[in-house]
Amino acid sequence: MKLSVLAEVLGGELEGPDGETEVSGISTLQNAGHDQICYYGNRAYQKYLTSTKALAVISGERVETSSRNLIIVESPYLAFRNALLIFPGETPSGFTGIHPSSVVHPGAEVGEGVTLGPFSSVDECARIGGGSRIGAGTCIGPGARIGEDCLLYPGVSIYHDCVIGNRVIIHSGAVIGSDGFGFVPDPEGHLKVPQTGIVVIEDDVEIGSGSTIDRAVVGSTVIGRFSKLDNLVHVAHNVLIGPGCLIAAQTGIAGSTIVGTGVTFGGQAGINGHIHIGDRAVIAAQAGVMKDVPAGATVSGYPARSHGTSLRVHAALIDLPEFRRKVMDFMREHSIKEEEGK
Amino acid sequence: MKLSVLAEVLGGELEGPDGETEVSGISTLQNAGHDQICYYGNRAYQKYLTSTKALAVISGERVETSSRNLIIVESPYLAFRNALLIFPGETPSGFTGIHPSSVVHPGAEVGEGVTLGPFSSVDECARIGGGSRIGAGTCIGPGARIGEDCLLYPGVSIYHDCVIGNRVIIHSGAVIGSDGFGFVPDPEGHLKVPQTGIVVIEDDVEIGSGSTIDRAVVGSTVIGRFSKLDNLVHVAHNVLIGPGCLIAAQTGIAGSTIVGTGVTFGGQAGINGHIHIGDRAVIAAQAGVMKDVPAGATVSGYPARSHGTSLRVHAALIDLPEFRRKVMDFMREHSIKEEEGK
Amino acid sequence: MKLSVLAEVLGGELEGPDGETEVSGISTLQNAGHDQICYYGNRAYQKYLTSTKALAVISGERVETSSRNLIIVESPYLAFRNALLIFPGETPSGFTGIHPSSVVHPGAEVGEGVTLGPFSSVDECARIGGGSRIGAGTCIGPGARIGEDCLLYPGVSIYHDCVIGNRVIIHSGAVIGSDGFGFVPDPEGHLKVPQTGIVVIEDDVEIGSGSTIDRAVVGSTVIGRFSKLDNLVHVAHNVLIGPGCLIAAQTGIAGSTIVGTGVTFGGQAGINGHIHIGDRAVIAAQAGVMKDVPAGATVSGYPARSHGTSLRVHAALIDLPEFRRKVMDFMREHSIKEEEGK
Repeated sequence: MKLSVLAEVLGGELEGPDGETEVSGISTLQNAGHDQICYYGNRAYQKYLTSTKALAVISGERVETSSRNLIIVESPYLAFRNALLIFPGETPSGFTGIHPSSVVHPGAEVGEGVTLGPFSSVDECARIGGGSRIGAGTCIGPGARIGEDCLLYPGVSIYHDCVIGNRVIIHSGAVIGSDGFGFVPDPEGHLKVPQTGIVVIEDDVEIGSGSTIDRAVVGSTVIGRFSKLDNLVHVAHNVLIGPGCLIAAQTGIAGSTIVGTGVTFGGQAGINGHIHIGDRAVIAAQAGVMKDVPAGATVSGYPARSHGTSLRVHAALIDLPEFRRKVMDFMREHSIKEEEGK
Repeated sequence: MKLSVLAEVLGGELEGPDGETEVSGISTLQNAGHDQICYYGNRAYQKYLTSTKALAVISGERVETSSRNLIIVESPYLAFRNALLIFPGETPSGFTGIHPSSVVHPGAEVGEGVTLGPFSSVDECARIGGGSRIGAGTCIGPGARIGEDCLLYPGVSIYHDCVIGNRVIIHSGAVIGSDGFGFVPDPEGHLKVPQTGIVVIEDDVEIGSGSTIDRAVVGSTVIGRFSKLDNLVHVAHNVLIGPGCLIAAQTGIAGSTIVGTGVTFGGQAGINGHIHIGDRAVIAAQAGVMKDVPAGATVSGYPARSHGTSLRVHAALIDLPEFRRKVMDFMREHSIKEEEGK
Repeated sequence: MKLSVLAEVLGGELEGPDGETEVSGISTLQNAGHDQICYYGNRAYQKYLTSTKALAVISGERVETSSRNLIIVESPYLAFRNALLIFPGETPSGFTGIHPSSVVHPGAEVGEGVTLGPFSSVDECARIGGGSRIGAGTCIGPGARIGEDCLLYPGVSIYHDCVIGNRVIIHSGAVIGSDGFGFVPDPEGHLKVPQTGIVVIEDDVEIGSGSTIDRAVVGSTVIGRFSKLDNLVHVAHNVLIGPGCLIAAQTGIAGSTIVGTGVTFGGQAGINGHIHIGDRAVIAAQAGVMKDVPAGATVSGYPARSHGTSLRVHAALIDLPEFRRKVMDFMREHSIKEEEGK
């Protein structure tokens, strides 16, 4: 694709002389070759603008750069994303359709155009919607339902009776529907509380590799529409996550907590059980959230408090040794004076 | 089952007019239909008591509720658990017995009544005790021993020579017996220390999905009887965990640490290596435990200290900016007075 | 092997009368039998020296011990490691060579002497170098390349086009090449940013069980030569990790961060995206690193600061309630005097 055509497809304005040059692909500012384009959207990378060898830089503003061409767009990250859709270039799997090694129980239903990878298994009463692709070794438990056009990578486990919507992407090693962590203390050991509910994953959700979502003790653990979970995220039983949430890697949410719409979690955040996180709240990375978070609030630290308070407390804390020294000096001096004054 | 019969089975006293009504199942206060029962055991859910549509509420005390019936019991969580045993209702797997696709090495032993799911493999010299169920794609390494009546979900890896007791439950994605993290620094890179020990999991243990338990460098990493591990827990080499511990999700325990009996770990706790955690200690969520914890102590924070100290320190910390302002004002005023007094 | 021969092989000096005794294996100070040897290298274990029943103790110094023999060496951990190489004693797998149940796409290349475990799959255009062992159920995606003499345990997923070097060890449940966490906010939901890059794992790397390494959005996520990752580590897209790093369990590194040579991460550390960690830096366990770390620095705490500062701040913090009480008393007393003085 010619650079001028690409700029047009991305809804951008090309500034530079090389509109007729063929674009070979996309790279980073640091690594782009002279026939590749890249994008600039984070000031941390400004230093690379003047040494980049890229054919063109997608940017939201006119910037100084060693590249001879700029594609000026309103949203550079969106334009970058759209460019990536044009140049995917991945090696396609050679295993398409129903692989002869896969096992489908006679009591299961598999829709039109489904791919079942080698050694995938579909248990009794399970249903897989049309166009879904199930990776090698992925196991669909009894009674589970997978919607249409889903993509389950190799090595995913879907436990019995769980319900996955349409266009859901689940990465390798993720486990959907394992038992919640419920035990009754007992002198003879801990008595297991049967986890009789399910997990419901709504449409257009993506679940990262190695993430684990526990089934409800009764009812459903729910991941709302368009929510995206990164890798190694833990969601406990009976958690309800609203639509459009972003949950970064290694975050854990304890049982029965309710998360609103469009909530953002930084990495390694920990959320207590039985609490409520309001719509559009932002939970900072590594925060330890002990109690309800109001809608729209940003919280950080352990135990988590409003981010503004956290910053003030932290500034005071970092100065505490010095402050303490000053105050001790003051008190000592003052006591001496008093002694002298007597 | 009639409500009056259920109340009797649960050892409770029915208060209400609907003893003859058939119970269809169990739900939550919020979601129960008019033929379902639910339980009340946490004040966070008091608000739902007066709007619940449940046929009956299991409770430890007489409470105000919109439900027409109460089942009064001594331990509501235990009664709820026992009720769940009566109404499980999950879709059973259609893959029972030894699935023809499974692979068992001729030098392995498989007991009576074992289930081997599709694509499960049992390596040389491995032994699986009677009544155990091995899920799809689960791999039992050479020399590993699985006890009787175990339940290993799909996609579990048991490494060579590890020993699993009876009635152990292991969820999908868990890895038992991977190498401990041991390297000798060397100018040529890090030299791997062979991890020649094993993992021993005693009877009645449950291991959550995605948890990883490393084999010992020599000897055994041990998970004691009736201990329960949640999801994504990491247990390093040579850790000894006593009986009856509860370890919440994403906790990590570093190498050679010894954990006593009945210890509770909140989620995302991190425990240093080579230390000792006393019996019945409680480690708060996200705590960073650097040194020994005495029996019965509750610790929290980073670095972890007694929870009482943590609360006092935190109260002082949150007020630090205000305290600091007051002290600065005081010192400034005092210095002015001194200047004036001169 | 006789004890005197073992001492010689380890480059140590035997002190004690039992050079002719046959060594049966290696154990710990606590558990060693009278024909086993063990090693002493950490003062936390000094208490066991005087009760050990070991035939001999490997030590860097002359120590008081109940064992009748000492093997004095320069580096006891290295000698211990070398001794472990002599007494491995694990049950070997009975599945060698290409297992008949494995699936190799006709367009894939498998080198000389490769082991493919039961139910392993190798997709189109993938290449596996000579001498590599691929465990049961492990999935090598299309276009992926595995070097020579690698060891991939059961249940590993290598996504399309990823490149693994020589002598790389990857433990069960690890996922290499899952999509990075990239979405463009949009009123209709979050738009997925295609992750078109790969993961490159250089020679002699070891990846722990359940760890997840995301592919780059463009270009490569790189794990440098001789770096070792523990279990449940998360490495986000476009992270570059230099050679010789040690990354303890449950650490997470956010997108595009650059890690230098020989950096050490304690467990559960969290590293922000788009930052730089200098060579030989040490990141303490549970640290939350928000910004660049200079070469050679040791940082700890949240947000992470130099470890010296952390220690000073922590000492002041732990004394804060007491300090506060003293200052309040002082101010109160002083104000009373002022009042009285008026």
